Amino acid sequence: MIMKTEIPELILDKNIVLKNISIMKNKSDKSGVIFRPHFKTHQSVEIGKWFRQLGVTKITVSSLKMAEYFAADNWNDITVAFPVNIREIDLINRLAKKIKLNLLVESIDSVRFLSGNLKASVFIYIKIDVGGNRTGMKSDNINEITSLVREIKNSKKLVLEGLLTHAGHTYHAKNKTEIKSIYNDSVIKLNAIKNSIDKNLLVSVGDTPGCSIVSNFSDVNEIRPGNFVFYDYMQYKLGVCSFNQIATVLAVPVVAKHSDRNEIVVYGGAVHLSKDFIEERSRKIYGGVVKLFSESWSKPIKNAFVKSISQEHGIIKIPKSEFEKVKIGSLIGIVPIHSCLTVSLMKQYLTTYNKRIFAMNNF
Amino acid sequence: MIMKTEIPELILDKNIVLKNISIMKNKSDKSGVIFRPHFKTHQSVEIGKWFRQLGVTKITVSSLKMAEYFAADNWNDITVAFPVNIREIDLINRLAKKIKLNLLVESIDSVRFLSGNLKASVFIYIKIDVGGNRTGMKSDNINEITSLVREIKNSKKLVLEGLLTHAGHTYHAKNKTEIKSIYNDSVIKLNAIKNSIDKNLLVSVGDTPGCSIVSNFSDVNEIRPGNFVFYDYMQYKLGVCSFNQIATVLAVPVVAKHSDRNEIVVYGGAVHLSKDFIEERSRKIYGGVVKLFSESWSKPIKNAFVKSISQEHGIIKIPKSEFEKVKIGSLIGIVPIHSCLTVSLMKQYLTTYNKRIFAMNNF
Repeated sequence: MIMKTEIPELILDKNIVLKNISIMKNKSDKSGVIFRPHFKTHQSVEIGKWFRQLGVTKITVSSLKMAEYFAADNWNDITVAFPVNIREIDLINRLAKKIKLNLLVESIDSVRFLSGNLKASVFIYIKIDVGGNRTGMKSDNINEITSLVREIKNSKKLVLEGLLTHAGHTYHAKNKTEIKSIYNDSVIKLNAIKNSIDKNLLVSVGDTPGCSIVSNFSDVNEIRPGNFVFYDYMQYKLGVCSFNQIATVLAVPVVAKHSDRNEIVVYGGAVHLSKDFIEERSRKIYGGVVKLFSESWSKPIKNAFVKSISQEHGIIKIPKSEFEKVKIGSLIGIVPIHSCLTVSLMKQYLTTYNKRIFAMNNF
Repeated sequence: MIMKTEIPELILDKNIVLKNISIMKNKSDKSGVIFRPHFKTHQSVEIGKWFRQLGVTKITVSSLKMAEYFAADNWNDITVAFPVNIREIDLINRLAKKIKLNLLVESIDSVRFLSGNLKASVFIYIKIDVGGNRTGMKSDNINEITSLVREIKNSKKLVLEGLLTHAGHTYHAKNKTEIKSIYNDSVIKLNAIKNSIDKNLLVSVGDTPGCSIVSNFSDVNEIRPGNFVFYDYMQYKLGVCSFNQIATVLAVPVVAKHSDRNEIVVYGGAVHLSKDFIEERSRKIYGGVVKLFSESWSKPIKNAFVKSISQEHGIIKIPKSEFEKVKIGSLIGIVPIHSCLTVSLMKQYLTTYNKRIFAMNNF
């Protein structure tokens, strides 16, 4: 059914998704930790139900709007893994009355605001920066963390639950050894804070590279990977997943061919894929390239890659032998560099068995 | 009213938009050329009406779906400035029966397919590559262009109308002189083809940098700029527009502050802005930074810039003196690097006078 596609379409293989979820769920269960997958990757209540069928009951999201979207489908234990946006206090209060809402804080200002404006209890994680330098309190800044803990404990509406980090720098790691060492380093840092401040704090970690490569999570209390549900070309090239664990490709129509440079032009660009790229041998790569079959896709076409993208155009470099086989008006598949951003743009899927699935419309 | 914003919100100044349209329309009128603005930048029937009120009757879009969206609001002369996607032949036929539909071709295969499958006449532009190396027939390949012209003229349903190019390499130009020279070079190349093949062909050009800087278009028949309606930080830094011609900023909530590195974390990332960046002194810049007022915004804050973005996070580097003034829970403005992509992600606007405007939902 893929072959009926007229415009760029995000194709999803449900069986691969179910396998990816099962592997991560089983590993968490064996380690005795909470599995709280990040739903920002798929952003779909329909796909959320697949997780539920496999026993998942707690989830992570990246915005309060996304929490609201999933709460409407009866998810009732949701962590918003983003520094709390206090401007959305009304939504926070609506959600806090309805579900167990877990929020991230990293400043006294946010804690005081919540303390003064909450109408129901929320559960609090302190965001710790273990070296990503994006956001969170510095892990070695025990004094400030201790003050924040005190402030939280003084508030009747705030229930301190744990420490949370996202070691996003694993995405820039060079290989599995480096990913593993970043994971271990994060865990050591969070446990050190826990041991020095309050042994009852939960420790929550969450990047897909780390969670995919580490085989046992028993040093933490909770994992929150998201991307693993689909993986993508970046994770594959990082060595984090095998190619047949990638669950989505973008089917795109071929609109032009340039035989002088073995390039094909497809209807599929930044508004479908995002502009994320990886670098390989000092070349920018905006996606892998596969052949599409009626209900699946091929291994990556060797030496073919998305060379550049603009708003709607994708330019694919492809070896001569394959170039000749590609016809104008045919379809070809692009393996997204970063599936989370591609989903965020496409907002819908077509499964390999021809079922239309929608993602949420707003952030 | 900007100040009531709770989540990232694309703020639009209608007065700036109207001025930008007027300037370009007047320049086209004075040059005696057709002004066919590209609507992919704003993607909104509401904003389309502002163009109509200023006398615009012909438009450019980037997909057949977008043509369908605007045709539904009574635009009846539309150029789809993208190599024709023959998989959408049913939509092409529906549109061709209803409006003057202008399509781009660059291969015999597409022409033959259209010829065999069209149920109403369409108007044809040949896409010429003047050096952008993205798509189109090479401008010096007169033999192939001549063959294509012959093939088009042999078809009863295809009406050859002109030659079209998008000199997208002006976006990578270093200064105005370079932009002007790319524009002139494009015009010379298209006119050379026209003079050697058929003097009745129309010549259509269309990038915002070129059209903004050139003062007279009398060497061409039509201009199709799009981005000029809003401009953005990239165009400003290129010297293509002044700062007060930029019509949109993204209002974002401040969620964290890091005084050790003068960085503020905002709720506003790749899913709102796109990952487009410019490079300045070997630094990547993902947006300019402004203060927001109740119905407008400031000049750019000096030495402040968006340093990095991930899915929902933006990290803003800001001088110490300004850092101190920014409070958690306050709003700050980001000037998008590339307004077309930001609109494509946000899909709605809030005007400075508090009117909600929607853009189309699909590509």
